[in-house]
Amino acid sequence: MEAKFPSETAGKSIRCKAAVCRRAGEPLLIEEIEVAPPKAGEVRIKILCTSLCHTDISFWKSESEPFSFFPRIFGHEAAGIVESVGEDVEEVKVGDLVLPVVQRNCGECRDCKFKGNSCTKFATEFPHAMPSDGTSRFLDKNGQPLHHFIWVSSFAEYTVVDMAHLVKISPEVPVDKACLLSCGVTTGVGATMKAAQVEEGSTVAIFGLGTVGLAVAEGARIRGASKIIGIDKNPDKFEIGKMFGVTDFVNPTSCGKDLVKRVIQEMTDGGADYCFECVGSTSLMKDAFDSSRPGCGKTVILGMDMHGSPLSIHPFEILTGRCIVGAIYGGVKSKQDIPILVEKYLQKELNLDGFITHEIKFKDINKAFDLLLEGKSLRCIIWMDK
Amino acid sequence: MEAKFPSETAGKSIRCKAAVCRRAGEPLLIEEIEVAPPKAGEVRIKILCTSLCHTDISFWKSESEPFSFFPRIFGHEAAGIVESVGEDVEEVKVGDLVLPVVQRNCGECRDCKFKGNSCTKFATEFPHAMPSDGTSRFLDKNGQPLHHFIWVSSFAEYTVVDMAHLVKISPEVPVDKACLLSCGVTTGVGATMKAAQVEEGSTVAIFGLGTVGLAVAEGARIRGASKIIGIDKNPDKFEIGKMFGVTDFVNPTSCGKDLVKRVIQEMTDGGADYCFECVGSTSLMKDAFDSSRPGCGKTVILGMDMHGSPLSIHPFEILTGRCIVGAIYGGVKSKQDIPILVEKYLQKELNLDGFITHEIKFKDINKAFDLLLEGKSLRCIIWMDK
Repeated sequence: MEAKFPSETAGKSIRCKAAVCRRAGEPLLIEEIEVAPPKAGEVRIKILCTSLCHTDISFWKSESEPFSFFPRIFGHEAAGIVESVGEDVEEVKVGDLVLPVVQRNCGECRDCKFKGNSCTKFATEFPHAMPSDGTSRFLDKNGQPLHHFIWVSSFAEYTVVDMAHLVKISPEVPVDKACLLSCGVTTGVGATMKAAQVEEGSTVAIFGLGTVGLAVAEGARIRGASKIIGIDKNPDKFEIGKMFGVTDFVNPTSCGKDLVKRVIQEMTDGGADYCFECVGSTSLMKDAFDSSRPGCGKTVILGMDMHGSPLSIHPFEILTGRCIVGAIYGGVKSKQDIPILVEKYLQKELNLDGFITHEIKFKDINKAFDLLLEGKSLRCIIWMDK
Repeated sequence: MEAKFPSETAGKSIRCKAAVCRRAGEPLLIEEIEVAPPKAGEVRIKILCTSLCHTDISFWKSESEPFSFFPRIFGHEAAGIVESVGEDVEEVKVGDLVLPVVQRNCGECRDCKFKGNSCTKFATEFPHAMPSDGTSRFLDKNGQPLHHFIWVSSFAEYTVVDMAHLVKISPEVPVDKACLLSCGVTTGVGATMKAAQVEEGSTVAIFGLGTVGLAVAEGARIRGASKIIGIDKNPDKFEIGKMFGVTDFVNPTSCGKDLVKRVIQEMTDGGADYCFECVGSTSLMKDAFDSSRPGCGKTVILGMDMHGSPLSIHPFEILTGRCIVGAIYGGVKSKQDIPILVEKYLQKELNLDGFITHEIKFKDINKAFDLLLEGKSLRCIIWMDK
């Protein structure tokens, strides 16, 4: 792909549009903002399309610290083109197709080189600002800084991200499909490959069939699971789930409060080999754990319970060989693993198209919130230039 | 090894000595008992030597269901020779050197063939009787049945075990060293290989340097861990630990109640890659979890807390990639993995000799209890024929 944005804007601030959230829970406002040039190790990207994820909603609703920073530019799932790069950036060049990612991957720290996917490049976390210096690259029309959102802020025509939060991908993949791999789908599919390592022939139970849960099903299907049970209160999710490999369905409202685990145990002859919690509810995490096979069941926690109670496990329940693992971003190492998923899409192994249920223009971004809040959408692609 | 016990006793009851516990916490009594011939799928073995493990002590002390069954023959760590076999037993023959093991491994059920080490051959658990039919093979001198102990009962000159609880090993290994591999040492060393899969260069923290904890250190040493931190209230354990690979030591009583995790975090630049709980205390399990590396730390629970409170974990603490795994018997599949450890011993890779701190005669078995209760012994070999 040729560089489409040569250097007339490099080094200068860019004035462009962004969807700004001024107060928790209020509709976003399309405002003109100013985006500073990238500092050393940073990249400014032109967002091509973005989509809305439940994590945006959770933080958008939140009125209390440490989650609440307003005014703020939300959005963290997107695909874009490199507009300009800061000093010392050699990994990407102007015009490259890139995905901004929440899950940092510097490739140099002990954790990036060794295990897990929690990069420790930056000692201090600033989820509302640039990771390197805790400042903002955004100013509103009154010259006041706007907060970033978990190092991405993709609800803007341009954004600045640290190189550790950027993955270069093949330009062969359509940008709307690529966008899905920036967060939600990668979390689910990745969890089956990295955090869980689902084996062929194993049984899988997925608590919550939103985009992440369906992506878990898709990953489990690819890895050859013999039974993929979806658990969701919405009965329509069975038909949707079948597109992504779900073979069986349990509606917890129709089998009694305490019986989900027994239903799963019966369906799997003792308990599922892998249970995924994809909602972010401590009580569902416990249901998932209780539904896991006593001698070897692995419970993978993908959902974030922002205000929940602790998970309480009796040592006897885990001693026989069960396992609980937390898997932010599915355990995926962004730069190493996302290109693998891109390749699986290009080889037609991975179904991405099915996740796109809606497409809208940037100016209508609040509709994406409505659709997700009403449970009508999986992923709504928000096109910046339409 | 030639068959030493041809069939003059086969098919008949054997009168022999056993150390019987008649009441919780009381000294064992050497009594004459009668050991029935093995039923189908069972094997009668002549115990050559046995040793005492903390699990014996825990159940010996316990006065309440579901742990308390008296009169009972304790002992579950031993080496023996096959005296006779029941119908359908083809895996061993008279004269074979065998280890009885608590952790069943039929090799045929889904769990034995697939993952984990929790064999599900028998639907019902009878920890006080034979697994196949829930009856006893022991009678006391008054013809009253004596309870078995977790499918082994090695504090007797002869015992009967199900073939699923028996591992044939090379006769090249000295029987006292072999005896150690029947339970405690296998649990610790095995946990580093199976449940944890410790990598070269990783950091390891071990909570509790009893036999199991020291065996974890030995396993971590074999697997090339770069730092092996022992945590124990007994300062003498550092010197002992060094024999098994311990490189650093923390005495929790000298670093403040809440600070163990901080000390470990400092020593490991953020948290240990692997934390092992080897005592059976919920509060230590939490200390171990808190000391594990946030992005990828694995906490392995080996100790059994018989009366403890639940382990309480906030989802946020685990979401970043931490893992908690229970590992009864270290995750070891008895028949598949014990021969590997035997081979490591024969190749002089695995230190077993250091675990044997005392040797006594069977008639003095209560001394083994005193030594372990006073914290003076690691393993005391109890010789049956001396």
